[in-house]
Amino acid sequence: MKKKPKFAVIGGGSWATAIVKMLSENLEEICWYMRSVYAVEHIKRQEHNPNYLSSVEFDVSQLKLTTDINEAVNYADYLIFAVPSAFMSSELEKLTASLEDKVIFSAIKGIIPETGRIVGEHFNEAYNIPLENIGVITGPCHAEEVALERLSYLTIACDDEEKAKIVAENLSSEYIKCKTSDDIIGTEYAAVLKNIYAVAAGIAHGLGYGDNFQSVLMSNAIREMKRFIKHVHKMKRNINDSAYLGDLLVTGYSIFSRNRMFGNMIGKGYTVKSAQMEMNMVAEGYYAAKTAYEIEAVKKAKKPIIDAVHSILYDNKNPKKVFKKLAEKLD
Amino acid sequence: MKKKPKFAVIGGGSWATAIVKMLSENLEEICWYMRSVYAVEHIKRQEHNPNYLSSVEFDVSQLKLTTDINEAVNYADYLIFAVPSAFMSSELEKLTASLEDKVIFSAIKGIIPETGRIVGEHFNEAYNIPLENIGVITGPCHAEEVALERLSYLTIACDDEEKAKIVAENLSSEYIKCKTSDDIIGTEYAAVLKNIYAVAAGIAHGLGYGDNFQSVLMSNAIREMKRFIKHVHKMKRNINDSAYLGDLLVTGYSIFSRNRMFGNMIGKGYTVKSAQMEMNMVAEGYYAAKTAYEIEAVKKAKKPIIDAVHSILYDNKNPKKVFKKLAEKLD
Repeated sequence: MKKKPKFAVIGGGSWATAIVKMLSENLEEICWYMRSVYAVEHIKRQEHNPNYLSSVEFDVSQLKLTTDINEAVNYADYLIFAVPSAFMSSELEKLTASLEDKVIFSAIKGIIPETGRIVGEHFNEAYNIPLENIGVITGPCHAEEVALERLSYLTIACDDEEKAKIVAENLSSEYIKCKTSDDIIGTEYAAVLKNIYAVAAGIAHGLGYGDNFQSVLMSNAIREMKRFIKHVHKMKRNINDSAYLGDLLVTGYSIFSRNRMFGNMIGKGYTVKSAQMEMNMVAEGYYAAKTAYEIEAVKKAKKPIIDAVHSILYDNKNPKKVFKKLAEKLD
Repeated sequence: MKKKPKFAVIGGGSWATAIVKMLSENLEEICWYMRSVYAVEHIKRQEHNPNYLSSVEFDVSQLKLTTDINEAVNYADYLIFAVPSAFMSSELEKLTASLEDKVIFSAIKGIIPETGRIVGEHFNEAYNIPLENIGVITGPCHAEEVALERLSYLTIACDDEEKAKIVAENLSSEYIKCKTSDDIIGTEYAAVLKNIYAVAAGIAHGLGYGDNFQSVLMSNAIREMKRFIKHVHKMKRNINDSAYLGDLLVTGYSIFSRNRMFGNMIGKGYTVKSAQMEMNMVAEGYYAAKTAYEIEAVKKAKKPIIDAVHSILYDNKNPKKVFKKLAEKLD
């Protein structure tokens, strides 16, 4: 009998907390790394994360909590990264343990700002992790609904189908269904791009556009996403699968989405800086818009929505005028 | 110079009122037929429809109001039908004027219950109107947002591109953008099927499923719609265009949709009869589910969502159990 693989989750936010909850339905032990000593101590005593999804109660005997990322890396065969992409570099700087032979799954949905790379590429290029040891966990999935045990669907992508299956099995439960995919590049880009489209939806809302326009925006967004991903990595995929269209919709239609909220403030007249300060955080779509705009392979693709968001966020263009022009290009 | 074609709008509801408003941006005169003598008198005196979109003010000198459908038919070169599909048969029974040489556009988005046909097919088969004189006006478009002059996009489909263009020109304005299409069958079926999917979204919501599930449902619905329409009429179309995906989204995500509301009551435990009585109207999706389920050409297509809605509405199946099984089939 094969030894059961060991899992560690890297991150203390709501998505990391949701993933630990999913794994705890299947595994006897999960290693859970987060930076905050306070949060770790709180979980040990109070059996829930004080900051995120605090309604989720854990059986602490299942959790191997640590504030040392190297302990987590040494412990696990499978590492699931679920920190905001903006913190990835500073987390990885602490690494002294070897990543050799580790299977690394990203649940990050963002671009690493310092390198402009999606997470899978980053591990492949900066750490020499072979592609067959890299995978992606994507939604459509709000962590809050995992906390409520509402039925949700994940897509687990990896070049090595066996590894995708192992992760899928360990995340599946009564309320989580997983499918596997071999499109690690496409699913990860979809998860990144959808945040830009959610910013666009927010800007439109802030400017006073209504539901009719929103549906046209989303219909154009999925066609743009298809063209974009095809330029980055051409392969047979159905862009209307849950990992692409579903993920776009759950974010683009969510009034709780931070990206949509950020866009909404921009549409209402906040400057980019003041919107970020007001929100006290940086929306993933902010970084994603820069990288998606600059990627060489996609320079020639028709991507009017990304171009519009980029020009508002980075070239200080007037949102009202930009969207009036964008509206002419949509159909 | 060609003579400008004359338009008549058939119907007194909110969508008919919105279409008259759109036309009034372009035409000096529009003939507007509705059944209600009271409504016609009210519009003449108060310059707005008393029952629907009452915030829309008309310049009455542009309107040739009538309660005689034959007057409207005799007047117009282009007839736009915008009555609920359930009333189509009784309206058409009044016809004595000839439909020969008339161009007939349907803005109905429903199945004629007595025949199980979409409106275009009905005119073609029952009135011998040649296909090149039949067209479809589809959204995504809530009439309420037309009243508010919020930017909206329509698709005008006709085999005869010239006629599609004429209708498009006369509906277009600052806040209405029109594209044309030659897919009259596909766009009309999309407009019909989306109502079934909106009922499904409502049932799911009523049963307690959340936003994660809703996005997976919509992602599966657009794939199912693609298969369905391909079985009815195979041609090259992009199912992610606004007339298909956009229309699905604006209805499936609208909390004001009558179809979604109807489904929601069913999900919460109302019987079909009591939900209809409570709503004091019949949702289009109710008839559409029956026809879509029974269409011979589509019998063999995989259509789990339509099958599920049909079994709940017509076979008295338990919504909770049906959706538990449906959830296994989605991905």
